[in-house]
Parts: sequence; C-alpha cells; structure tokens
Amino acid sequence: MFEAVELSRAVAGRTSPNPAVGALIFDAGGYVCGAGTTAPPGGPHAEAAALAQAGARARGGTAVVTLEPCDHTGRTGPCSRALIEAGVARVVFAIADPTAQASGGAETLRRAGVEVVGGVSAADVEAGPLRPWLHRQRTGRAEVTLKIATTIDGRVAAPDGTSRWITGEAARAEVHARRARVDAIVVGTGTVLADDPALTARNPDGSLRGHQPLRVVVGDRPMPAGSRILDSAARTLVIRDHDPAGVIERLSADCCDVQIEGGPRLAGAFLGAGLVDRIEHYLAPAVLGDGRAAVVGSGARSIADLSRFRLRMPVRALGDDVLLTYDRVTGR
Amino acid sequence: MFEAVELSRAVAGRTSPNPAVGALIFDAGGYVCGAGTTAPPGGPHAEAAALAQAGARARGGTAVVTLEPCDHTGRTGPCSRALIEAGVARVVFAIADPTAQASGGAETLRRAGVEVVGGVSAADVEAGPLRPWLHRQRTGRAEVTLKIATTIDGRVAAPDGTSRWITGEAARAEVHARRARVDAIVVGTGTVLADDPALTARNPDGSLRGHQPLRVVVGDRPMPAGSRILDSAARTLVIRDHDPAGVIERLSADCCDVQIEGGPRLAGAFLGAGLVDRIEHYLAPAVLGDGRAAVVGSGARSIADLSRFRLRMPVRALGDDVLLTYDRVTGR
Repeated sequence: MFEAVELSRAVAGRTSPNPAVGALIFDAGGYVCGAGTTAPPGGPHAEAAALAQAGARARGGTAVVTLEPCDHTGRTGPCSRALIEAGVARVVFAIADPTAQASGGAETLRRAGVEVVGGVSAADVEAGPLRPWLHRQRTGRAEVTLKIATTIDGRVAAPDGTSRWITGEAARAEVHARRARVDAIVVGTGTVLADDPALTARNPDGSLRGHQPLRVVVGDRPMPAGSRILDSAARTLVIRDHDPAGVIERLSADCCDVQIEGGPRLAGAFLGAGLVDRIEHYLAPAVLGDGRAAVVGSGARSIADLSRFRLRMPVRALGDDVLLTYDRVTGR
Repeated sequence: MFEAVELSRAVAGRTSPNPAVGALIFDAGGYVCGAGTTAPPGGPHAEAAALAQAGARARGGTAVVTLEPCDHTGRTGPCSRALIEAGVARVVFAIADPTAQASGGAETLRRAGVEVVGGVSAADVEAGPLRPWLHRQRTGRAEVTLKIATTIDGRVAAPDGTSRWITGEAARAEVHARRARVDAIVVGTGTVLADDPALTARNPDGSLRGHQPLRVVVGDRPMPAGSRILDSAARTLVIRDHDPAGVIERLSADCCDVQIEGGPRLAGAFLGAGLVDRIEHYLAPAVLGDGRAAVVGSGARSIADLSRFRLRMPVRALGDDVLLTYDRVTGR
C-alpha cells in the first residue's frame, strides 16, 4: 500500500475533480506486474492503467489500490468490472469510495467471487494524496490550505514592503514543489499590484515544472496589462467576488486542493469565514519587529475568536527554516 | 560530566554573579563519594561542597567539575588548593575559567602533581547552566532571552487585549519552571498596567517555587499601589531608564541570565538595540488574524534590518504547543 500511495503522489494536482489514486497488480506468484495512477479527467483510472500493464499476468493475482475500485460507468467503464474480467483473485484497498455514484465496487467484486480486503493503511492514505479529494467528497467543497512564510514575530514583509528573502532556498524550493501538486493558487489583487508574482511552479533553475496549477486572482482592482500572473505560463482565472465562500464554491467544481498564498487581508478573510482547513507555515528564524503581519482583518475581537489548529509532528527542517503544518480543529 | 551538569541545573538562577557549577568526587575505587553545587554568593563553591561530603575518601580519587577549579581567594579559598589538600589524584573539567581573576586552577593543580584533563564535554556544558555566566564573562553583560508566546500569526493578544489562554497548561508550566532558573525577569510598565502580572515562578497548584527571580519593571509610568508585581512574593526593581543598554548594564552587575517577558514595545526596543541573544518562542497552533503583535517598534524599515537567529532542533512539544529556541546569529 505504501508503494501505491507513493505512485499516486506523482499525479496529485493533475487528476481533479477525480481522485489521485495509485494501483499495483501482483501476479499469482507475488511479483509486481502492473502499476498505474489516475490519468487526467477522461483518461483511464489507476486500476485500468495497472491492468493494461499487467496483461494476462493479472489472472489469479492481487490488486492493491488506495481507493475502493469504482462501480460506475462514466467516461470510463467501472474498475470493478475490469478487475473481474482480468481474473484478479484478491483486491486490497485503503479507503471506501464515499460517493453514492461510484461506491459499491467492493460488493460487486465480492459477488463475483473476488476476495476483498478494505481499510488497509487507511489512516496513511487519508493523510496522503487522496486527502483533498476525500475532503471535497465529504464537505462538498475543496480543501483550503493557507500558505504563509513568516518571521518569528509573524511578519511577511518589512514596513517598506520588502520581503526578499525571509525564508531560504530550501523553503522556497518546497513551496514550488508543493505548487506543482495543488489544483489552484489564490491571491488577492493587492498582492498582484504589490509583488507582481508569477505564481508558477518552478524548478530551482527557474524553469517551469511539468504541471502548473490554476492561478486565481480575487478582487476587483485592475491589474496592469504586463502583470506576470496574466502571462501564458499557466492558466489564470480572475474572480471579482470578494466573498471567500463564493470563491471556494466556484473553484470546488473542478478543484479539490486550493492554496491561498496571500496577501494578509485575503488570508484574514478566508480565516474569518472559517474556510481555512490547513496551514502550511514556513517559519524563518529571524525577527523584524515591525512591518506587515501574515494575517490581518479576520474580524477577531477577543481571545474567544481564536481559531484552533493541530500541529503535525515532527516539524520539518528546510535549511535554516522549518515547515509547520497545521490541521483545523475548531474555528469560526 | 553529564551528572555534574544535571547537578548544576538545579542551582541555575541562584548563584549569580557566580557560575552555576556542578562537581562530583569519585574515590580511588571509582565510586561516587561526594556531590556539590555552587552555593549562593558567599557560600562554598561546588568543589568545596563535594569535598566536604567526600571527606577522607577523596584521597587518590577523581574530581569531575563543569568549570575549571578557581585559583582565587575571594569570600572562599581557592578550589585548586582545596582539591590538592584533599589528596585528589585527578581533576576532569569541561570549560576553562575565562576570568583573569580566577583562572590558573589547572596549572596550580598540575604543579602539585595532580593529573588534569580539561575540555571534556565542553560543548554540552557550554549549552547548559553555565551558558549565561560564560556569556557575561565574555561580553561583560548578562545574556538576554526574549520570551514570547504567540499564535501562528505572531499575535500575543486579541484586539480587545484579551490573551488568556493562547498557550496551554504544559507551555505555561514550562514558563514557570524556566522563571525559577533565571536571575531576573523584565517587563515594561505598559504590561504592568495592562495585565497586572505577578511575574513569580509558581508550581502548577499556584504555590510559589523555592526560588524567585528578581522582578524588573522598566519605564516611568506610575503603577497602581496594588499591582501584583509590587507584592512581597519576590523582590522588584523599578528602572526608569528607557534605554535597553542602560537597563542591561545595570542588571549585569548581579545577573547573568535576564529574561524579557514583554510587552511588545519593550521587546522591540531590546531587539532594535541588538540586545536579544536568545528567543524562547512558545507557539500555539491557533490563529487570531488581528490583534497585538509579539514585537513592535524595533525600528526595522526594510528586509535588510532582519535580525537572524538559528533555531535549535529538535523542536520541543509541550502539549498542543511547541517551544522553539533560537540563538542570535546576526542582528542590529
């Protein structure tokens, strides 16, 4: 299952609104004979790709899949049927499909005489590449991650607006690696006007990564024609709606994994609306003692308005910096 | 040496301006026969206390001390002489005494035929209870630790001033344990007026710990007569000097380990003056998105004014919170 999760990691951010699934086929002798991941929408599911690779060797073998095989005919046929036709003797999966439409694969397989084991390594898979998709299935909206890069005192820029570089190279490389795995990155027009960010996912040498997330600009201030976010390096969507709920509703049609990258007012608005599910906090061991805070305007008035998160341990070192990842516990 | 460091930890904050030293005496057969720590100023040094316990069993034995035995007659006689008279055959120490006045103990011991080994576990001892004293010997001023307890976004209070409780019980217990190990705690008059803190070191049940640091209030705003910081639970010093350098110069006469506990403007003033050597950062996994920042008014204007620190790994979990400890690298 560990290997199937690792397989699926490679396609995170490229499969939405479908789940990023990984599948392995073992032949009757226990040797791997097929591996597959979810293709972009319209393409084959992970099981179909793995079965195609395995061919006749799948007969009598075992399929290991991160998500329960679908039982649904959409743009592709049901995976349950494909596994039965390939003669697979045993199917092991981690998470039951939570959708009314596609669930039932395990039952179909069992009725056809296939041994089915569900729930294997479920906790690990829940925390992995399937997480945003599961979140969207359960809540009806994309999972929202707030990304901030701050000093010890929570600043993201000096009083004169300069901010390069608070974090070091390793942290910045991780930001780009993460961008390549999400569906969309959201910024406010203020950030476009102040920083003119490209918001692309780049390699350390500056070249573009193979997958680029959708760039989303929220706000109604006009942007200069030459803004980098309007270039052809990736798609860009401009949403004039200021309401965080409206923005997320709109993005949730196609996206499972949405990242808010700033500025502080946009972060405050999403936080105040209770729409931040996770925080990725790049913390630089440095102090400014003045300047722009990472989050403002959340509407918090007293300590009772605190939004509580849970820190995932261990904390990850990135050069001199650390990456702290928090999951929401409570909040407005 | 590890045990000698642990011994000395128990007296940290009670020996200044003398160093918090730990000493163990092993008899000729290798059994521990004496253990001692530095007494408050005027009392015996660690070696003398350990030798007193060992008595005749010290003859032919080994002394293990965190600091080079002193060679100086002050309010007590030189420890080098006491070790020679006790007939100790071998002295092992971690750090050479950096003071002109008291150094030379190793040389005196060697001349008397005692085997002397210095530098053992020096790095561990440097990072332990001797650190503030060594800092003061080398720089001429007390070591200054800034203690902050913040949200993810660097806030220490909500817009209405409420701040209880951002961090949880385990973090607050650690703050009190740490208070009992420092020489002085400094706050501004603004904090006294806003929060009326007791600034005592307390046990989880609210009772006072055995050792209380000096409470120091900086500023010239008058404090109400009933302020808790003026009670009889511990000594309190009021300094009307606003200049951080003046405050530290005054405290350095008797203190090695000074902790700044707030408020944000006092923290900013010390930071802007380049007088923060360490930061102890209690980070709660929660966001306010508005309110009071942990540090303000440092005088930083651009990102070039960033004060760089180094984070000590691993990060320590305290309940749901974490304690991040940083040592200064560069800074104004």
